Amino acid sequence: MAPRTVAPPPDGHARVRMTVAYDGAPFHGFATNPDVRTVQDDLHEALSKVLRAPISVTCAGRTDRGVHARGQVVSFDADAGHFDAVALTRALNRMLAPEISVRDVALAAPDFDARISCVARSYRYRVLNSAWPDPLVRDLVWHVREPLEIGTMQLAADQILGEHDFTSFSKKNKSKVNETFVRTVDRAQWCRVGNTVQLEITANAFTRQMVRSLVGMFVEVGRGRRRPDEMGEALRAMSRTAVPSPAPPQGLELTRAHYPGDV
Amino acid sequence: MAPRTVAPPPDGHARVRMTVAYDGAPFHGFATNPDVRTVQDDLHEALSKVLRAPISVTCAGRTDRGVHARGQVVSFDADAGHFDAVALTRALNRMLAPEISVRDVALAAPDFDARISCVARSYRYRVLNSAWPDPLVRDLVWHVREPLEIGTMQLAADQILGEHDFTSFSKKNKSKVNETFVRTVDRAQWCRVGNTVQLEITANAFTRQMVRSLVGMFVEVGRGRRRPDEMGEALRAMSRTAVPSPAPPQGLELTRAHYPGDV
Repeated sequence: MAPRTVAPPPDGHARVRMTVAYDGAPFHGFATNPDVRTVQDDLHEALSKVLRAPISVTCAGRTDRGVHARGQVVSFDADAGHFDAVALTRALNRMLAPEISVRDVALAAPDFDARISCVARSYRYRVLNSAWPDPLVRDLVWHVREPLEIGTMQLAADQILGEHDFTSFSKKNKSKVNETFVRTVDRAQWCRVGNTVQLEITANAFTRQMVRSLVGMFVEVGRGRRRPDEMGEALRAMSRTAVPSPAPPQGLELTRAHYPGDV
Repeated sequence: MAPRTVAPPPDGHARVRMTVAYDGAPFHGFATNPDVRTVQDDLHEALSKVLRAPISVTCAGRTDRGVHARGQVVSFDADAGHFDAVALTRALNRMLAPEISVRDVALAAPDFDARISCVARSYRYRVLNSAWPDPLVRDLVWHVREPLEIGTMQLAADQILGEHDFTSFSKKNKSKVNETFVRTVDRAQWCRVGNTVQLEITANAFTRQMVRSLVGMFVEVGRGRRRPDEMGEALRAMSRTAVPSPAPPQGLELTRAHYPGDV
């Protein structure tokens, strides 16, 4: 993707970077939608009230319906004269609780844009691999009863590292022409934590439903229904019909958006 | 407490031991109540339907409104002729999901009683000790912003080990005459897991609101508002007015009920 230029804030305004966490369950995804409740609309409403001006945010990753975030980053412009990060965080947290939480608010460079400046995104997917469903974490995991073989799941994950065309693992966006599904995966690591089997995955960007579609395939491998090398075959097939159904959204969480210069 | 005898199952019936997990949020506690939704009533309804006979259960620990469990144990009697633990588990999990989950069903000795046979109970209390509230676990933790000093909390916890009168940390049950608040604490261990500070506590039995009242005090110590040795003073005061408010219910979970012979 070609580098894009970011317009600076209007006169007297400052660019703001804000990190938010949210429970995806009550929202129909991040992106604004006049018909249903979304994270972006809740943010717009709260920010516009607190800052007494219409505010519009851009985000690092437009999470789908039911997907959680602990490290979503948004950017917007605010009147520089009255800007107070601590007071803004406190006021927003009062208005947005308990479904959304503001972790951090800070002034950013005038050319910062949460989406365009973002060089990589990290997601986590949690599978509860246990004989009984756990009511306490039911909204945070995909429950899979059959024992999963994490070794073969990792062999499959190794095959998506680097640059690939993820057409087979993507939901097409009908409104986009010449949509490309080529992405570069930097990390795809499965690990077992107690009775939870979880994937940590980082890429320059993700296509729609990419992580969930990949996890659907990984879990079929872990169950022994597919061989690890079928992951490579599925990538080359360039067709959604070559892969199993996507994993459900509640196991997925946007954990971090990466920017140049972040420590 | 004097040992109590347990009546055997009626002719043709077997005593059953069942371990259940539940999300406390939608329930007004465990104990049956005609006016509100309770765990016990949900269990009675499901068991009576599946086993086609009125079933009544006893439990290891009557958790209060909003308190969770992963290791609650109940016992009841079922027709021995048609008993099938696997089929019963499956049918119950279909009916009780997603708020309640059946972990295990097994035949027990005729003199087994989930409450009377239970020699000890273990609870866990989770405090999220972070600058920002976490929407993903908001129903599983008490969020405390101020940094907690776990060392002084442990010093306070050491003072409740052994047999004590927990009158100061108990909600009286108005319907009980000669209620005693003497209990024996076997373990009270604070540990930090990431940004969560959690207490693991085991006692022969607990009085009403005992863990939450103790946690309310421990957290005041961790915040530096009380000294660790004020825990001993609070115990000796034998008065609820000597202690802070109880911690909220959503941080509490019944993790295990202990029985003789369990491995």
